[in-house]
Amino acid sequence: MDIRQYIQQIGQQARQASRLMARADTETKNRALQTIADIIEERQAALLEANQQDLHTATESGLDMALLDRLELNEERVQAMANGLRQVAELEDPIGRVTDLHKRPSGIEVGRMRVPLGVIGIIYESRPNVTADAAGLCLKSGNATILRGGSEALRSNQAIASCIQTGLERTGLPRAAVQVIETTDREAVGELLRMQEYVDVIVPRGGKGLIERVSAEARMPVIKHLDGICHVYIDDEADIDMAVNIAYNAKTQRYGTCNTMECLLIAAPVARAVLEKLAPMYRKAHVEIRGCDKSRAIIPDIKPATEDDYRTEYLAPVMSLKIVDSLDAAIEHIEEYGSQHTDSIVTENAEKAARFLREVDSSSVLVNASTRFADGYEYGLGAEIGISTDKFHARGPVGLEGLTSQKFVVYGHGQIRQ
Amino acid sequence: MDIRQYIQQIGQQARQASRLMARADTETKNRALQTIADIIEERQAALLEANQQDLHTATESGLDMALLDRLELNEERVQAMANGLRQVAELEDPIGRVTDLHKRPSGIEVGRMRVPLGVIGIIYESRPNVTADAAGLCLKSGNATILRGGSEALRSNQAIASCIQTGLERTGLPRAAVQVIETTDREAVGELLRMQEYVDVIVPRGGKGLIERVSAEARMPVIKHLDGICHVYIDDEADIDMAVNIAYNAKTQRYGTCNTMECLLIAAPVARAVLEKLAPMYRKAHVEIRGCDKSRAIIPDIKPATEDDYRTEYLAPVMSLKIVDSLDAAIEHIEEYGSQHTDSIVTENAEKAARFLREVDSSSVLVNASTRFADGYEYGLGAEIGISTDKFHARGPVGLEGLTSQKFVVYGHGQIRQ
Repeated sequence: MDIRQYIQQIGQQARQASRLMARADTETKNRALQTIADIIEERQAALLEANQQDLHTATESGLDMALLDRLELNEERVQAMANGLRQVAELEDPIGRVTDLHKRPSGIEVGRMRVPLGVIGIIYESRPNVTADAAGLCLKSGNATILRGGSEALRSNQAIASCIQTGLERTGLPRAAVQVIETTDREAVGELLRMQEYVDVIVPRGGKGLIERVSAEARMPVIKHLDGICHVYIDDEADIDMAVNIAYNAKTQRYGTCNTMECLLIAAPVARAVLEKLAPMYRKAHVEIRGCDKSRAIIPDIKPATEDDYRTEYLAPVMSLKIVDSLDAAIEHIEEYGSQHTDSIVTENAEKAARFLREVDSSSVLVNASTRFADGYEYGLGAEIGISTDKFHARGPVGLEGLTSQKFVVYGHGQIRQ
Repeated sequence: MDIRQYIQQIGQQARQASRLMARADTETKNRALQTIADIIEERQAALLEANQQDLHTATESGLDMALLDRLELNEERVQAMANGLRQVAELEDPIGRVTDLHKRPSGIEVGRMRVPLGVIGIIYESRPNVTADAAGLCLKSGNATILRGGSEALRSNQAIASCIQTGLERTGLPRAAVQVIETTDREAVGELLRMQEYVDVIVPRGGKGLIERVSAEARMPVIKHLDGICHVYIDDEADIDMAVNIAYNAKTQRYGTCNTMECLLIAAPVARAVLEKLAPMYRKAHVEIRGCDKSRAIIPDIKPATEDDYRTEYLAPVMSLKIVDSLDAAIEHIEEYGSQHTDSIVTENAEKAARFLREVDSSSVLVNASTRFADGYEYGLGAEIGISTDKFHARGPVGLEGLTSQKFVVYGHGQIRQ
């Protein structure tokens, strides 16, 4: 069987399984999630062994330390996978819920019912725990899943997939509801991305290169996450201590996450008061600041910021800084240099807060809170399949609901169109 | 200026205008809609004259009667355009509405705010009234619009666009919020479909050829409407008179619409009782029936149905008929031959109704009502930009809400991530 046939067969099986998954009731889906969690715990030794083999091959082929760390499973990470699945079991099942039911003048009652999307393809790099996390969310939302992990994690992913498929089978659900592509041939991805008759949506999780390739090649919709060039704007009517706290947390709580602040904007009237407190804190945390001329007049020991700096997602202890004249200038800066991901205003003025929320065109806009809150767990979605920087379908952290659609349901009593 | 530059310029202007439109308040948008309606009425003579020129050219180039009819404007149709805009003004404005607001353990309050998609491209054929209808919906939902109508309607569309732009200007909104592509060069469409940096979504309205070209070429999401192979299933526990009424109405009330029934499924135990009443009614209406062997045993004067018949959207007084053994067989037939558009069950059994609603994977599923109800006006959406047969983003009739997205808004009081 060649690659094309192999991927087509996976697609067909996924489509068939998706029909059964769409009909599965909440109790069965939850039982499957719990059973899979149990099996993952039972087979911990086998999972760690498969992962050791992957780590061995990866070390020999010279994978760098950061990637090796992401590839590694340990007891704690295996336990986290099992716990994650049990948490998904506890989330409310969106499928079948009817909302907006209302009676029309014709006498019919019209509502909208939540339904699964169908088959979800997930393409990811390194971290094998994505196999369990993504499969769990897709399962709970009544979808079938095709998973394509990184080639360096193939054995780990197969071992996890085997736990999932055993769990599905024991619960009476189709094994093919979760399939892992078991070839490292790059052409498999190309074939998957062209298979629009069997795959309803693709979710790439990984670096920019992966996401750009998937977006360019996919014939089906993509839920994707590009840059997070996030801003905090400290307004002239801000509570200075609160502002200092938020700006410090948004940059330093974690450097490598997409909702980390990359650029700080400060209204000119409060710039000195803010920076006198904040700059020493950043210095102590070894955060490099690159600032505009006005900010360098206040804290002269920083580097100048270039145009490029304002367009950079550092994902590191580096940040840009700009002093602006007004809320309008801040919004304009974000519009020009931001990535529509997450932006926050610190102000005590409710009217300015409302303008910022409404006018800043980002997937998350916050008032008086750290940008670091922009994620599925913090928002109460339970877990997220990713953060969408698109506006179509789902925007921001994507939880169970983002993996569903709504159809119209109509209850009549014999009504006909006049 | 070449085509590429011309379309790029339109895209840039639309993007700029979209930012201002997103900020426009409800009152201003409604005033613009009403002003445009007034101008359309005032300029009726000029609109009809431009349309006469289009009709003259189209007649000379041999356009067929059906297309000429769709191209024609008359006093009534001009009035309908103006009235349509006034109705859109009366619809509730979705933009800025915050829903699902809830407090999280961290103390932040999280909600979702409705926001426009940005720039919407609409590619349509013949009917010039789409220019006003589509522009009205996009305007109310805070988007900018790029319209590309059929070349045969260019003068009519320009005249309507001029009314719209004058109305926008008089209300203080940007003229470029609604732009008509003023070239008949086919390459303009290709350029529009590649311009993903300026166009957020494309809505094709027209025949299958247009929709397939747009789907294949567009680099941005498409809200599209393919076939409507709609079914009525008459269950063995149906009220026979109600069933006869609904099946007759679903086929004959209008033949050319996408929600017209194309295939009738009847449970075997009631087939004779139904067909003895229904077949003579269809015969009187000159509807040609193509049936399975079992149905031909009851009404022998009909043609046999081929596999192809069950996959055909006739859009004409022709229909297919099949007698099935059970609800399961009906659902399987719809899954195999349907187009996931609109399907209806007639039954007095609530459990079977619930199964049909849940398991039939179509954009509209109905119980005891004619398939002809599946449209935006009947559902109370006010007006529709189209009917989506996709599951992603919007499914079924797409009204104002389908032209919007949701962003997360967070209200904090100084919260930072621990």
